[in-house]
Amino acid sequence: MDRVFNFAPGPSMLPLEVLEKVQKDLLCYGSTGMSVMEMSHRSKMYLEIFDRTVADFKDVMGVPEGYKVMFVQGGATQMFASVAMNLMQGGKADYIDSGNFSHNALVEAKKYGEVVIAGSSREDNYTYIPQYTLSPDAKYVHITTNNTIYGTRYDRLPETGNVPLVADMSSNILSEVYDVSKFGVIYAGAQKNVAPAGVVILVVREDLMGNEMAITPKTMSFKKMADADSMLNTPNCFGIYVAGLTFQWIKAQGGVAALEKVNIDKANLLYGFLDESKLFKGTAQPQYRSRMNVTFVTGDPDMDAKFVKEAAAKGLVNLKGHRIVGGMRASIYNAMPMEGVQALVAFMKEFEAQNK
Amino acid sequence: MDRVFNFAPGPSMLPLEVLEKVQKDLLCYGSTGMSVMEMSHRSKMYLEIFDRTVADFKDVMGVPEGYKVMFVQGGATQMFASVAMNLMQGGKADYIDSGNFSHNALVEAKKYGEVVIAGSSREDNYTYIPQYTLSPDAKYVHITTNNTIYGTRYDRLPETGNVPLVADMSSNILSEVYDVSKFGVIYAGAQKNVAPAGVVILVVREDLMGNEMAITPKTMSFKKMADADSMLNTPNCFGIYVAGLTFQWIKAQGGVAALEKVNIDKANLLYGFLDESKLFKGTAQPQYRSRMNVTFVTGDPDMDAKFVKEAAAKGLVNLKGHRIVGGMRASIYNAMPMEGVQALVAFMKEFEAQNK
Repeated sequence: MDRVFNFAPGPSMLPLEVLEKVQKDLLCYGSTGMSVMEMSHRSKMYLEIFDRTVADFKDVMGVPEGYKVMFVQGGATQMFASVAMNLMQGGKADYIDSGNFSHNALVEAKKYGEVVIAGSSREDNYTYIPQYTLSPDAKYVHITTNNTIYGTRYDRLPETGNVPLVADMSSNILSEVYDVSKFGVIYAGAQKNVAPAGVVILVVREDLMGNEMAITPKTMSFKKMADADSMLNTPNCFGIYVAGLTFQWIKAQGGVAALEKVNIDKANLLYGFLDESKLFKGTAQPQYRSRMNVTFVTGDPDMDAKFVKEAAAKGLVNLKGHRIVGGMRASIYNAMPMEGVQALVAFMKEFEAQNK
Repeated sequence: MDRVFNFAPGPSMLPLEVLEKVQKDLLCYGSTGMSVMEMSHRSKMYLEIFDRTVADFKDVMGVPEGYKVMFVQGGATQMFASVAMNLMQGGKADYIDSGNFSHNALVEAKKYGEVVIAGSSREDNYTYIPQYTLSPDAKYVHITTNNTIYGTRYDRLPETGNVPLVADMSSNILSEVYDVSKFGVIYAGAQKNVAPAGVVILVVREDLMGNEMAITPKTMSFKKMADADSMLNTPNCFGIYVAGLTFQWIKAQGGVAALEKVNIDKANLLYGFLDESKLFKGTAQPQYRSRMNVTFVTGDPDMDAKFVKEAAAKGLVNLKGHRIVGGMRASIYNAMPMEGVQALVAFMKEFEAQNK
């Protein structure tokens, strides 16, 4: 069976070179006589993998001094609670409500303190990033840099002054250059741009640790997890190993800046066609279009279904949109090659010609 | 490089047949055109894997009607908080303190309610399972069925009447037959007998769900996770897939009862030698000896270190004991073949002869 172009929103495509390396070393990693899956997380051989993975992430992400990088479990969904438990400190927090996951984040945070919705595009089905008014006395401002379901992206970051900016980057981490020093906390589920599901990358500015609520489970305490160097519990060792291979792959591609250029080209190719098409139409406002998740519709659900089915038969799979938005969504993360987007656009043209 | 016999306490050996299957399908699972790591957790192809894994677990574990099986994240360490958040209900709980992890469990539970230490062998360095006195009005009784660090095991389960019995089975799940109907909750980190780290198997009696504290993160709510069929967040799809392959391997071995016999034979071989040896001595009281983790010492730390080093040179690796106990520990989970234990005993005899 040939490999397909997989446009799934996550878990999603991984670089073929990464998968091939995993496969080669699966029974026996180097001279260890065992699989990475079988290594004690405390063993010298595994700690070498772990430490290199942290170092390579800092390198590709550009993490400055004063930040701790961790790998934790529970997905971004669990981080919604962790962020509030660690940072709310009995005060209030601003949430910008730009999509389904940013909304889930603020609903979860309400369990732990006062949530202010600083801006929302919920009434308009999240087709854009909303305007917002920030509270000067908030403990933090929470944003979702890229909205996977709606296909939108912050074109510029909020200016939060001395209030820490907290970002869920699950669906666009390492796909474009961010200045980490602008953030207090960055977190991202790894299953879109980095690794198989089950790993969260967590970057915390060190001065923001140690103020968690007493009821915080210790696995969710930033300070305790940082002090234990991500090994307060047994981490997802294998997922972290795959993440490390992806970081090395990113370096081999020329780093995040180089990938960002390719990602812009990929997105432009697809949006350029959408803007010309008579059949297909993008759903996100142009200013806020995501480079990772391109959402579009024909306006006819039957035609949408026909398109998704015929595309799959051509090896262009998982193009069905999220049930909330309907239509189609092409997720074109780092590991989706330009050839995949070219094949998609070629098929869209062909489909349009046949369905006038 | 040949594969070694890996006596690590966890993560630890996986069956070679499981690893070979993972390796074969790593780039392309069946006719899907993608790796399991790349599959959407909501896709038909992944849900088939997931549903079969749940069904096979119920089969090998003998889970009766009225229990929900889930796969969650955060390790047993996070379960220590989850159990208390979900079951304590403002009341108190009995904890039997039989080792390091059972102690960690009760310390974490204190954040959420009143913890009664119903019995403890802490003063005696946990060399046995303690006697205990249970509270008739406890919300639950918590035990650790096998103590990984100290090498002890409950030779019989507590009789808790109508009080639900909650068991951390991280280090002996599926290594011996348990009557699941005796338990209210069973949980186990998968990284010893089942799968790579990052997956917790969670079995909850259905009437025990829905009473969690308001501050429970939704990823830790038994009820919410059960209602979402483990997909409230993106699960560790790949780890669950490997767990499923292990369940199939267990079936091919004749099921848990057949593995239990082999495990008893493996343990008897090793303990039998320890009881005869003039150099090595088991540290756990014989009545409570673990079949999974065999702890022993020479009484001389330098001799212990020499043994561990020379064993490793023979391909018998990770025999160093936990730093709390010292000496040696041979973890002989399901995936450790009899040949591994035979090779270890042969080397111990040889070492003893050379170090009289």
